[in-house]
Amino acid sequence: MTRHALAFALTLALLPAAQAAEGAKRKSAQEIVDAAPASAWRDLDQANLLYLTLPRGQVVIELAPGFAPAHVANIRALARGGFWNGTSVYRVQDNFVAQWGDADSDDPAKARPLPAGVAAHLPAEFTRSAKGLRFDRLPDADGWAPQVGFVDGFPAARDPKTGKVWIAHCYGVVGAGRNNPPDSSTGAELYAVIGQSPRALDHQLSVVGRVVRGIELLSSLPRGPAPIGVYADPAQRTPILAAAIGSDLPPAQRLPLQALRTDSQAFREATEARRNRVDAFYTQPAGHIDLCNVPLPVREAPAAR
Amino acid sequence: MTRHALAFALTLALLPAAQAAEGAKRKSAQEIVDAAPASAWRDLDQANLLYLTLPRGQVVIELAPGFAPAHVANIRALARGGFWNGTSVYRVQDNFVAQWGDADSDDPAKARPLPAGVAAHLPAEFTRSAKGLRFDRLPDADGWAPQVGFVDGFPAARDPKTGKVWIAHCYGVVGAGRNNPPDSSTGAELYAVIGQSPRALDHQLSVVGRVVRGIELLSSLPRGPAPIGVYADPAQRTPILAAAIGSDLPPAQRLPLQALRTDSQAFREATEARRNRVDAFYTQPAGHIDLCNVPLPVREAPAAR
Repeated sequence: MTRHALAFALTLALLPAAQAAEGAKRKSAQEIVDAAPASAWRDLDQANLLYLTLPRGQVVIELAPGFAPAHVANIRALARGGFWNGTSVYRVQDNFVAQWGDADSDDPAKARPLPAGVAAHLPAEFTRSAKGLRFDRLPDADGWAPQVGFVDGFPAARDPKTGKVWIAHCYGVVGAGRNNPPDSSTGAELYAVIGQSPRALDHQLSVVGRVVRGIELLSSLPRGPAPIGVYADPAQRTPILAAAIGSDLPPAQRLPLQALRTDSQAFREATEARRNRVDAFYTQPAGHIDLCNVPLPVREAPAAR
Repeated sequence: MTRHALAFALTLALLPAAQAAEGAKRKSAQEIVDAAPASAWRDLDQANLLYLTLPRGQVVIELAPGFAPAHVANIRALARGGFWNGTSVYRVQDNFVAQWGDADSDDPAKARPLPAGVAAHLPAEFTRSAKGLRFDRLPDADGWAPQVGFVDGFPAARDPKTGKVWIAHCYGVVGAGRNNPPDSSTGAELYAVIGQSPRALDHQLSVVGRVVRGIELLSSLPRGPAPIGVYADPAQRTPILAAAIGSDLPPAQRLPLQALRTDSQAFREATEARRNRVDAFYTQPAGHIDLCNVPLPVREAPAAR
C-alpha cells in the first residue's frame, strides 16, 4: 500500500508540463477532499481527544497513545483530576510555540499538586519502533529525516537505520514540555507549534498529539517577551476554563470529528494536487511538498452537521 | 567565500559525536550573535524600510529593490502618496498570511485611487538573474529548490539550470498580492507569511521584502473565517494608521536597525550552532537546518541603545 502510494505520487510528479497545463480540468485539493467517500474518513476516538476550553472557544487535541502511551495515560488522569482547570496559557513565543499548564510549576511553594493517579515521573517517549507499523510514506525529500509520511494520521518521520519512527514538529503538533533531563516531562506542561516547523525538536521531546480544532485560538494569542515568550504579567495569561477527555464528556458536548485517512486515495490525490497545483493562480507546479505543508483535513461527521 | 562557508559548515557537521558531547564548552547561537564584532553588522538603508503603524505598534519591513525594483519603487510612491493611511489589515489566514491594503480594491466603485506617480501596471518580478550575485549558500538539502542560501540578507533559492534566484517564502517574508494574471500586482496589496513557510508560492509572486520588526503584531491578529481569512465584518480589520519610508521620516522617528551580515563568520557560526545544537536541552544534534529555520538577526545599532 505504501509502495502503491509512492508509485502514484511519483507518476503524477513526473507528468510532463504539457499535461500539467491541462490542469484546469483537474480537481483542486479542496474539491478532492470535499468529494471523498465516507470510507476515506475515520472517526476520531473520543478517548483520545483532549478538549481545552478557553475564553474565546475550544481547542481540541487528538492524542497519540501509539507514540506516547505513558504521557497520554497521564494526560487523561490530569484532565480527570481537574489539573488544568484554572491554569493558563502562560507562554507564547512568536514563530515557535504556545505553552500551557501550571505557570508556577517550577516553584515548589506554589506548584499545583498532581491529582491522584497521575505519575510524577515518566519515561522519555521520543520515538517508537517502526516494526510492523503502517507508514504512509511521502515520496518527497526531507532534510531532517531519511523518510517522512504519516502514522495514525500524524505527520511522522522514520529512520530505517535505527528502526524508529516519531511524530514531526509540524504546525499544530503538541508535545510535553520538559527540563533538561530527557525523562523530566509529565504531560502537565504542554506546548503546541504555532510557527515554522521547529524540526530540530524532533525525537528530543515526547510528542503527545496534534491540535485538530481551534489552533487559531492559540496561534493568535499576544506574544510574550523575549527570549522565550513567558508573559511577564500574570494578567496576560489566557485562562484554561476547563480541560476534559472527550469520552468523559456528556455525548452532547463531544464533537463528532473525523479525519481524512492518510491511506485513502482521496488523501493521496489531494496531496498530489498540492504538490503540483493546478489552480489558475499558479504559474508552474512545485513538484514537491514538505511534510509540514500537507494539510490533514478534519471535519465534523456529516450526519451530525 | 561561498565555498569557504560550505567547507566550514560541513566540517562542523561532521564533528564526531565525542566532540559534540563537549558541547557545553561551545557557544550557543545567541552567544555567538551577541559577541559578533561591529563589522558583522550592516546598517539597514532607511530608503528600503517601510514603517507601518498599527494601533499596537510598528511593523518595519526591509524592502528588496534588488529583487523587485518596480514593486519597491511603487511601494515608495504609495507610501509617499499616503495610500495606506487609513487602510487596514483585512485578511489573516491561520498558518498562512496576513494581508493589508485597500479592502475594497476589487470594487471599482469603492477602490482607493492610486496616488500620483504610482504605476497601475507592473511587470511580474518573480525571479532575478543569479549572474554575478553573491549567494551565501547553505550546505543543507532543500526539497523545493536545488540550492538555498541568502542574498542581500534575504532567504533565497537558486536554480543553476535556469540561472535564476528568488526570495523564499519563509516566515515574515512580504509579497505583493495579485489576481490570476502574473503581472496583476502593484504593491498596494501586501502580505506577510505568518505560518509554516508556503514555499509552493516561491517564484510565483513578486516578493518585495521581509518584516524585520514587529512580525508578532501581524501574526497574533485574530484569524478571519475560512477559506482565506478575509474578515467578514469590517470592524474586525486592524487599521493602518500610517505608512512611511524611513528616509522620509524625521531622523528621530527612524529606527537605527542593523542586520547580521550573512557573509560574516558570526552568522555562519551561529547557523552551525543551530544546525548542531549544543545546549544541554538537546539530546542529539540534528545535523541539518532548514532555510526557513535560520534566524536572520536584526538589532538596533548599539550607539543608539
